[in-house]
Amino acid sequence: MKLLRYGARGAEKPGLLDKDGKIRDLSQHVPDIAGAVLSPESLARLAKIDAATLPLVEGNPRYGACVGNIGKFICVGLNYSDHAKETGAEPPKEPILFMKATSAVVGANDNVMIPRNSVKTDWEVELGVVIGREARYVDEKSALDYVAGYCVINDVSERAFQTERGGQWVKGKSADTFGPTGPWLVTKDEVKDVQNLGMWLDVDEKRYQNGSTKTMIFGVAHLVHYISQFMSLQPGDVISTGTPPGVGLGQKPNPIYLKAGQVMRLGIEGLGEQRQQVIATP
Amino acid sequence: MKLLRYGARGAEKPGLLDKDGKIRDLSQHVPDIAGAVLSPESLARLAKIDAATLPLVEGNPRYGACVGNIGKFICVGLNYSDHAKETGAEPPKEPILFMKATSAVVGANDNVMIPRNSVKTDWEVELGVVIGREARYVDEKSALDYVAGYCVINDVSERAFQTERGGQWVKGKSADTFGPTGPWLVTKDEVKDVQNLGMWLDVDEKRYQNGSTKTMIFGVAHLVHYISQFMSLQPGDVISTGTPPGVGLGQKPNPIYLKAGQVMRLGIEGLGEQRQQVIATP
Repeated sequence: MKLLRYGARGAEKPGLLDKDGKIRDLSQHVPDIAGAVLSPESLARLAKIDAATLPLVEGNPRYGACVGNIGKFICVGLNYSDHAKETGAEPPKEPILFMKATSAVVGANDNVMIPRNSVKTDWEVELGVVIGREARYVDEKSALDYVAGYCVINDVSERAFQTERGGQWVKGKSADTFGPTGPWLVTKDEVKDVQNLGMWLDVDEKRYQNGSTKTMIFGVAHLVHYISQFMSLQPGDVISTGTPPGVGLGQKPNPIYLKAGQVMRLGIEGLGEQRQQVIATP
Repeated sequence: MKLLRYGARGAEKPGLLDKDGKIRDLSQHVPDIAGAVLSPESLARLAKIDAATLPLVEGNPRYGACVGNIGKFICVGLNYSDHAKETGAEPPKEPILFMKATSAVVGANDNVMIPRNSVKTDWEVELGVVIGREARYVDEKSALDYVAGYCVINDVSERAFQTERGGQWVKGKSADTFGPTGPWLVTKDEVKDVQNLGMWLDVDEKRYQNGSTKTMIFGVAHLVHYISQFMSLQPGDVISTGTPPGVGLGQKPNPIYLKAGQVMRLGIEGLGEQRQQVIATP
């Protein structure tokens, strides 16, 4: 299934994408794509619904973030061997974790705002992992049992805020609109091999990132296992698993950063695409 | 007002503490002490209620965290001049921010669990600031207008997870039960000078922390202003503003860490007290 949330910000309704790529409304079955709705039992119930019986949504509504009421947005740093190299950092010995403020989350095609006083706003296409069952101290073998599905994330980052303003990365990851998430939550059963998905990101039609989840240093199962040793994970938590090479910070001979007026497009194989217009903070 | 949440975990009801120190139920007036209920308008409405007309809560119910559904739990590092000194760190030039997972939040007197594989679990009495109005790019002068009130927080920390496992502090701040919050949210009008509150923490009746919010490097108004430059703040977000000297890490000649069986007690002048039994993770 491709689950989604559509409609105006703050008033999104649950839906799914049918075989013809049309949105069908799920409001009669679930209150939101969030929390307990992401449990294996709940997803199994939804999978039994004949999409043709669901109300067709007319027009081209906005996509909200594909998960509502995200409890924790956990990011993994320097998790692609080829990206670690471009930043000049040693590949980490164990996963680097940091948080993105959940208030940064927006829909897949919403505008991305450059924060005030920013000169180093950058892009990062990432595989998002959506938790479906509470996970505490889970082993790597069973870790994927706790995953509901996957989505595209743009882990938008302000590099000066991240690394030149006092040391903890959250400061550069958390501005409003810095977390486009979706368009769809693609349930796990539809993703054959999560460690072999192509991923890409363009700015103004120039391709900057062109990678694959196969160069992740720590794979999804290890990450869920690892994070669950330090904190519990709840249904509706999201893990953003790091980015492949080609971020603005890594451009040669000089870094390149986003400017108002530019357009980002990004996608992951089987998980859909995002498009964001970059604007100044009003 | 002293607002609170009482009852079993996950089923807390809203209440307030009356002049005689008894709990009165607020369920007929608000659904929870959370989100929009913390707005200035909502708090003004609650302040008009004669507490004597509210149902008296019998017995000694558990205190839940004094804020429900916390969106972001933002912590400030090394924010007391005397604590920075004890850790051997230079006082920061601007606030150090990091996150605590919201899944770590518990009630004021709930057990604190030592995580598996932990040998450096430590305490930190902190002043909590509860946001009441959305704050974006607010100036320091008006910053307190966005604050609903204050509470006691124990920013429980695992020092090895925090600093020896890959660099970002969130890893050592986020274990389940690492965020006792409350017992009360004391509204701003009841706190005369938030920068002159005594604070203390005992482990097994030995006093380890004995400080005052007056040695904060960055005061509450500056912190709200500062954080709002990097992310927006929503009603129900909590800022934990740093700890005074006397943490386990700072003990001489050797650091001292928590063991199962110990008891922490801590408090802040006018904001109440907490008591936590330390236990092993079951």
